[in-house]
Amino acid sequence: MPDAGPIQSVRWAANQRAVRIIDQRRLPNEFVELDLTTLAEVREAIQTLAVRGAPAIGICGAMGLAVSLAGHADESRDAFLARARDIASDIAATRTTAVNLAWALNRVLDRAGRTQGESMDMLEAMRQEATAILEEDRAMCLRIGEAGADLLPDGARVLTHCNAGALATGGLGTALAPIYVASSRGKKVCVLATETRPLLQGSRLTAWELTRAGIPVTVITDSAAGSRMRAGGVDVCIVGADRVVANGDVANKMGTYGLAVLARHHGIPFYVAMPSSTIDKTLPSGDRITIEERDPREVSTLGGRSVTAETATIGNAAFDVTPAELITAFITDRGVVSPPYFFGEQ
Amino acid sequence: MPDAGPIQSVRWAANQRAVRIIDQRRLPNEFVELDLTTLAEVREAIQTLAVRGAPAIGICGAMGLAVSLAGHADESRDAFLARARDIASDIAATRTTAVNLAWALNRVLDRAGRTQGESMDMLEAMRQEATAILEEDRAMCLRIGEAGADLLPDGARVLTHCNAGALATGGLGTALAPIYVASSRGKKVCVLATETRPLLQGSRLTAWELTRAGIPVTVITDSAAGSRMRAGGVDVCIVGADRVVANGDVANKMGTYGLAVLARHHGIPFYVAMPSSTIDKTLPSGDRITIEERDPREVSTLGGRSVTAETATIGNAAFDVTPAELITAFITDRGVVSPPYFFGEQ
Repeated sequence: MPDAGPIQSVRWAANQRAVRIIDQRRLPNEFVELDLTTLAEVREAIQTLAVRGAPAIGICGAMGLAVSLAGHADESRDAFLARARDIASDIAATRTTAVNLAWALNRVLDRAGRTQGESMDMLEAMRQEATAILEEDRAMCLRIGEAGADLLPDGARVLTHCNAGALATGGLGTALAPIYVASSRGKKVCVLATETRPLLQGSRLTAWELTRAGIPVTVITDSAAGSRMRAGGVDVCIVGADRVVANGDVANKMGTYGLAVLARHHGIPFYVAMPSSTIDKTLPSGDRITIEERDPREVSTLGGRSVTAETATIGNAAFDVTPAELITAFITDRGVVSPPYFFGEQ
Repeated sequence: MPDAGPIQSVRWAANQRAVRIIDQRRLPNEFVELDLTTLAEVREAIQTLAVRGAPAIGICGAMGLAVSLAGHADESRDAFLARARDIASDIAATRTTAVNLAWALNRVLDRAGRTQGESMDMLEAMRQEATAILEEDRAMCLRIGEAGADLLPDGARVLTHCNAGALATGGLGTALAPIYVASSRGKKVCVLATETRPLLQGSRLTAWELTRAGIPVTVITDSAAGSRMRAGGVDVCIVGADRVVANGDVANKMGTYGLAVLARHHGIPFYVAMPSSTIDKTLPSGDRITIEERDPREVSTLGGRSVTAETATIGNAAFDVTPAELITAFITDRGVVSPPYFFGEQ
């Protein structure tokens, strides 16, 4: 990891008897770390978005499963395994959208099942597996960062959208990883963060984690990106991805597509940073991606108070699809992938 | 005016002894009309944005001047005129940015000075002048609406930004006028309103006044405009203008430029609707327009609570500049003006 690294959103504490997370509910106003030591605490942290970002949730769930089992290592092997499965189901039920949580929990459960010996041996193996999930995520972020850092010139002004940063992963993040690595290599980099309505992840989270790592950030409203580009204030765009399909089309946070069109209009490179695991080879193109429509109150209310006429319809699609032809390159844990894109089965 | 007209944001009440305004501070949650009968009430209404929109403020100020003088018609001619000038200065000082307020007040004062007879005669002339300002504004909006209505096909889905509607003027508004007129002529028109961060005029005001007039509105975040266009959900864009300069470049609410680029990318007509008085012939091009930077707290706080890291810089430019080449046509009170644009002195 680079020296001038970012915060660590999820990690072990108390000799692996606790999961230490940054309480993202209290950002950016307060920096508070929570030690989760019981199943109830792990569930609440995931459910109430104290921890968020698909990779971070997966890591927290995997560690949380081991933590929740710490008091049961004296049980019989069968009782312990049955309890582990129950707890894993409980944790998995807290958030069902992202695949990472169920995937990480299953990986830890499988490891227990494959482990010989007593319950204590299985528990120790589960802790190792959760640690491996964290370390693999950190390594993956770092590889994305190293691949992407070379794309950033010294003095680069980088526009990003939403939060695909350290807070969302176990490591340096995805879209923000190249920024952290370039900065740790001594390049001067500054970031233009779109606030990202309706939930303001850019304003609340991206600005917080970058400035905490000493990287200068300017927050702008989403609609100000175009005039910043026109004024010559953006050298590079980097965003994350929720899903990349076989032809290279990308589903990501609402607003990504508009930024990609604006970047093309102004001749600014537009990069998508993501782990290879984000690629969905089963879908041929982006028009096959189902768009999640979220609660309209995210748009129509502020602090519980309505800001929209009741008689108006609200559109609140969670993400949009950016066609591959607008993407300059993908920055992945396997290196930079340039067009033509084809990520499907060969 | 069309039958299915919109609300009336400023008008006479109580036999011209009061200015009746819609209290825009309470929208969209409550529809309350206020009758302003004293100088203090007029000042407070303008200062606290109970009435907003440059034309509406000008009308309110002009009427408010006459209303404030109603108890003084028994004074000598000189005393009455001196008082009128004092009150006009008082009202003008409440908001100094838009030229309309000072212009309207001066027009009413001038009329008084040119009027023969006693104070009561001058007061009556001032009421007539304020009425003329309102009626001219209504007529101007209607002409914009009639010119623009022909550009909207039956079934048109119109995207607009911010609020350039009835609430901001004495009549049908500017950008919304073609929508009201097309609707009154029996065309089915529906509107996609961008919420318009940071102050949410699209969500709070545009959605309210259109749905109240029976026109269907969908509110979206500003960054969702691109994917709506890509999905074929936008037939026409119409926005207002703060200033149009000699070569046709337009200063308008932040975000207008990005929408114009997106419209061009998708082959969607992009219209700017405004009275001819918005044209500033003294500036040759948009790069000469000074951009107002507003209070960063409009972006960095919600309901008084910080939503951004304190260490981050905030960009909050009030408007951006859209180059003339992205504008399909101007919809004005003198008809539709198509390229090539030159509004400067001949």
